[in-house]
Amino acid sequence: MAKAMADKKATALKKNPVPPRARITRIPATEVFPVIEQGMWPAKATEGESFPVRATVFREGHDALGVEAVLIDPDGKEHMRVPMYDIAPGLDRYEAWLMPDRPGAWKFRIDSWSDPYATWSHDAAIKIAADTDVELMLEEGARLMERASEGRPLPKGSRKQKAPAKESREILLEAARLMRDTTSSPQTRLSAGLSSQVRAVFRETPLRELWTRTRTFPLKVDRSKSLFSSWYEIFPRSYGAHRDEDGNWISGTLLQAADHLPRIADMGFDVIYLTPIHPIGTAFRKGRNNTLEAGPQDPGSPYGIGAPEGGHEAIHPELGTFDDFDEFVKRARALDMEVALDLALQCSPDHPWVSEHPEWFSMRADGSIAYAENPPKKYQDIYPLNFDNDPEGIYQAVKEVVLKWIEHGVTIFRVDNPHTKPLSFWQRFLADINESHPHVIFLAEAFTRPAMMRTLGGVGFHQSYTYFAWRTEKQEILDYFVEVAEETSHLMRPNFWPTTHDILTPQMTTGGTAIFALRAVLAATGSPSWGIYSGYEFIENVQRPGFEEQIDNEKYEFRPRNWEQANQHGIENLLTLLNSARKRHPALQQLRRIQVHPTSDDRLLCFSKHVPAKFSPTGEDDTVIVVVNLDPHNEVVGSVEIDLSKLGAAVTYGTGGQILEVVDELDGREYQWGEHNFVKLNPQERTAHIMAVKNSQSN
Amino acid sequence: MAKAMADKKATALKKNPVPPRARITRIPATEVFPVIEQGMWPAKATEGESFPVRATVFREGHDALGVEAVLIDPDGKEHMRVPMYDIAPGLDRYEAWLMPDRPGAWKFRIDSWSDPYATWSHDAAIKIAADTDVELMLEEGARLMERASEGRPLPKGSRKQKAPAKESREILLEAARLMRDTTSSPQTRLSAGLSSQVRAVFRETPLRELWTRTRTFPLKVDRSKSLFSSWYEIFPRSYGAHRDEDGNWISGTLLQAADHLPRIADMGFDVIYLTPIHPIGTAFRKGRNNTLEAGPQDPGSPYGIGAPEGGHEAIHPELGTFDDFDEFVKRARALDMEVALDLALQCSPDHPWVSEHPEWFSMRADGSIAYAENPPKKYQDIYPLNFDNDPEGIYQAVKEVVLKWIEHGVTIFRVDNPHTKPLSFWQRFLADINESHPHVIFLAEAFTRPAMMRTLGGVGFHQSYTYFAWRTEKQEILDYFVEVAEETSHLMRPNFWPTTHDILTPQMTTGGTAIFALRAVLAATGSPSWGIYSGYEFIENVQRPGFEEQIDNEKYEFRPRNWEQANQHGIENLLTLLNSARKRHPALQQLRRIQVHPTSDDRLLCFSKHVPAKFSPTGEDDTVIVVVNLDPHNEVVGSVEIDLSKLGAAVTYGTGGQILEVVDELDGREYQWGEHNFVKLNPQERTAHIMAVKNSQSN
Repeated sequence: MAKAMADKKATALKKNPVPPRARITRIPATEVFPVIEQGMWPAKATEGESFPVRATVFREGHDALGVEAVLIDPDGKEHMRVPMYDIAPGLDRYEAWLMPDRPGAWKFRIDSWSDPYATWSHDAAIKIAADTDVELMLEEGARLMERASEGRPLPKGSRKQKAPAKESREILLEAARLMRDTTSSPQTRLSAGLSSQVRAVFRETPLRELWTRTRTFPLKVDRSKSLFSSWYEIFPRSYGAHRDEDGNWISGTLLQAADHLPRIADMGFDVIYLTPIHPIGTAFRKGRNNTLEAGPQDPGSPYGIGAPEGGHEAIHPELGTFDDFDEFVKRARALDMEVALDLALQCSPDHPWVSEHPEWFSMRADGSIAYAENPPKKYQDIYPLNFDNDPEGIYQAVKEVVLKWIEHGVTIFRVDNPHTKPLSFWQRFLADINESHPHVIFLAEAFTRPAMMRTLGGVGFHQSYTYFAWRTEKQEILDYFVEVAEETSHLMRPNFWPTTHDILTPQMTTGGTAIFALRAVLAATGSPSWGIYSGYEFIENVQRPGFEEQIDNEKYEFRPRNWEQANQHGIENLLTLLNSARKRHPALQQLRRIQVHPTSDDRLLCFSKHVPAKFSPTGEDDTVIVVVNLDPHNEVVGSVEIDLSKLGAAVTYGTGGQILEVVDELDGREYQWGEHNFVKLNPQERTAHIMAVKNSQSN
Repeated sequence: MAKAMADKKATALKKNPVPPRARITRIPATEVFPVIEQGMWPAKATEGESFPVRATVFREGHDALGVEAVLIDPDGKEHMRVPMYDIAPGLDRYEAWLMPDRPGAWKFRIDSWSDPYATWSHDAAIKIAADTDVELMLEEGARLMERASEGRPLPKGSRKQKAPAKESREILLEAARLMRDTTSSPQTRLSAGLSSQVRAVFRETPLRELWTRTRTFPLKVDRSKSLFSSWYEIFPRSYGAHRDEDGNWISGTLLQAADHLPRIADMGFDVIYLTPIHPIGTAFRKGRNNTLEAGPQDPGSPYGIGAPEGGHEAIHPELGTFDDFDEFVKRARALDMEVALDLALQCSPDHPWVSEHPEWFSMRADGSIAYAENPPKKYQDIYPLNFDNDPEGIYQAVKEVVLKWIEHGVTIFRVDNPHTKPLSFWQRFLADINESHPHVIFLAEAFTRPAMMRTLGGVGFHQSYTYFAWRTEKQEILDYFVEVAEETSHLMRPNFWPTTHDILTPQMTTGGTAIFALRAVLAATGSPSWGIYSGYEFIENVQRPGFEEQIDNEKYEFRPRNWEQANQHGIENLLTLLNSARKRHPALQQLRRIQVHPTSDDRLLCFSKHVPAKFSPTGEDDTVIVVVNLDPHNEVVGSVEIDLSKLGAAVTYGTGGQILEVVDELDGREYQWGEHNFVKLNPQERTAHIMAVKNSQSN
């Protein structure tokens, strides 16, 4: 039987030596986007966010063609079929926007066909106007109407298509009758074939001839939280940490941290991210400011994971118990917050895995286990896992750890340095976890070269840290916003952080409150996911000399803060306003539609985000224009130029011509904006506008 | 059994939910180039021409990696394995050049691996210099030498590799011994591991760990004539055409045309291209200058194919017999010329197919056969084939036609307007013909939008007409040269024509001899394939009013020329010099390596082409620098700036620093060129330099 099949295949190939898979279709659609690695990996999409599909479509000769993008849901059903339009005349490049409505393994493809109605309309209009072949063209039009009414494409023998609904059929047949009515003028008869009613029927149920389709291309659609999320990072041990009467440090606990959740939720954050909460090793423990010798009072870095009390599956005894953790999760959930946990796959020399599974680490020639190194730098407190010696053993151990935390209510993992582990590990692991737990989200904390960053997203990470913190000049910020929104959005979903416990860029150290404010505005509006590291409220902006991170870093010590003073610089208030604007505006919850607008000054940055009504959860257009003064020291007065035709927003007419009614989300003030707009932004009082365009309907 | 396999597959997928085909490899290589349409269609390559392969390759962590491009011949054997180098540091983009040595269905893939020797060399050098872990690093180095000598990669259990040759093994083991010799200094011991001998062994037989490979990607390799060819186009009926004593035209014949072959061969052309030689219809025959009514003396357009005497398979009786055609082919072959025939798939109303197979055409509503139209234009002398009514019937008929001409010695077809026929037809047809007749070459005569142009190449056309004739300004010429050499060379092979019987651009009408000369220089040097339409020698530069083609076009009348005067403008001589330079210089026979050089004047254009010794048929570097004065009216004096480091050419040292010894292929004069070069080009005497760089060895 196998032989019979092989023979049949050989015969077919002899008849047409092009293998079926490689055959160009009758109406070709090529260069399809988004397709990653020849369609081997699914492109990213998100429930409730529209995304663009593109293809180069063309045909022989002069006849017209039709192109549609078809979105197929996880059950294999056609979910949407949308006409594609030529976006680059002369280059035959077509685009349409699709939107999946739930997570899962979706697909899309491009359908292309010969459009006899468009061809006839074009030719008939020209020829009848020139009094050429009048009767012939009208008769051909009438026959076309008849065929369309029956869903009967040419050439003869083509498979019949779904015919139009009864009412539509009658419109077509009536048009055919009128076109054959020689008592009317040719123009009148032609008009019957070109009427808006007839055109609507063909738009609704086109007569598709030579109908061909591309293969399907995979999409991984994740839940909306993977795209739109507002993170707040804490070291739980700092919450409630204090010295006892002897001056000895007493650690804060998970329950004490839980008491602070309402303040964080009030600011509008919906993800509470905990740095590692596991037992910390004592061998080579780092002291304050990363010194090599820890003092007895030094709690050690939570990234030095593992001690006799346990490893990645355990909770540091000083933080509490699993019951406490469950309580923390419960209280977060009650506040509509999800809990994100750090997943740092490395071990302190005291980690139980070191003695139980020395084969999971690298052995040096002297028989010792290799610690982390980047010669000449040594990190003796960290043993990296070697994923190649016993890949299956490590895989199952890590899976067990992650499943345990999922069982305890963790829905998000912030993966520490995923780029130091094999991509093949992550691809399998993320698919595996998502198969049983599709709601679980993984954030890649990788700050490395673009190929690795993008591929981590490509193989399954739901969110990614980005270069945002290092994009400081106007043009590089805007270029980067466009890059993440347009060039790489099918590969990775950005999460913008102004600072983290590991990152305090030089820019942040001199601009005082203003730089903290403006970077928060950029992060919260430039990306649908953003994050704040606790303490941001206090403008903690002093670097450890020689390092781009904070002095007295919370990684190595307790950092209790006086939260009652948290709004002393107004940052708490700003964060609240930002999250509030994000919640109200679908435009800020989506990644893919951004426009950059020119300004009169290099320190004035302006962009807008937009969601059209048909893709908006509110059913209305949503447009937000963001203007930021990038200079934290000086007031900037200037203008913002907006091409209203490109904005996509509701434009009304005022006394001065076309206007937008806008309201600043940061202070509620209303303005009328047009093509040219005066702005004055002062770092002390107002460093940015977040102008929401009011819908004309609501005016 | 099918069930058992499905079960097994399901179990495997349950264990690793990523389908095998989609799994990322341990050391990933992504974004592979050249890959067309997800690898469904083969990329183009040519025997004897090197082409670049690129991939984005990266890995987790800090360890070093190795990358190789592997070229696989049609028998499945590894033909070349070449290290790839990072060409865009920071972007992890690697490149290597490969070269197939014969036509056929080749493949390539990318191999990537962990490079323990590079990792050790890097780490050991730093650590031993810092007096850190000295004994450990040397012992690890010694063990690495031992493992490499046995081809034994880590981790344990990896498949053994081919061990180095005996002599190399000894080099490695001796290095291991020296590295363990504690009587020597650490630096001496380290040097034993880093010696050039040891490095050579690892270069030759690397110890590849975690060795992974991409899928293979297809290449279609065609014979060298498909890339490097010099065409000369004739209407054979014009050769020997004359009026008899009554003033009636007597057609020239194939045998008379054959008498002119020696002159054409003497100019160095190696393809003689015949416009259609079939019987011409009389219904709606076009007269002189495309007038609608032909006179009795008008021979008709050879593109109005088909008459009672026969169609595409027949020869116009006035041109001769098949014996005459065979004689023509024989005489061409004796002069090392191949014969190219026009393949214009359309019919005059008198074509036998019209009555025998009316179903191969489109029927109009009035029962008549549809002639060609582009409303409001009508072409009543032409019936286009309808490829959809009876695709198999037409396919077999066209195949029969082409096979007949192949039988009679035609090796090249110049396909007229392929973009008005379905691409699916061409893909099957070209693969089919090439399967039985791999030497047969098809040139696509399509002047249309880029997507169609490129895809015609992508589905199998060996050569393509281009936009060359319409690229007239310096920057657009250079951009186009770079585009065809770098951006689209895997999709289409260009053929540059300054004019054709259909094309006489406005530029050609005012510059006299100079514009004909400089456009010939650009065509002959800018592309390895070029073509000249007969009569170019006579500067035939008058347009038919309103059309970009010659007045008194040879399509519609006999155009005997006085070939004894063919060198009256020096063009014959120039064409000879150009083809002679092309024959001597591999750099001009290849498409892919071009450099643009700045000049002091917008009318001075300069580029160079280069073939490195290892890919050159001569075994020596070949570099040719072309400088053209684009102004046909004025002398231009200026300078040409050459970055010698980028030229790839042999640079020697003269009194003034680095120099190139160059010789002008157009007049044999020798110069010394350096970074800055004075040029003076006068349209009357010398419109261009074609500077061949002399090899330092030959100096």
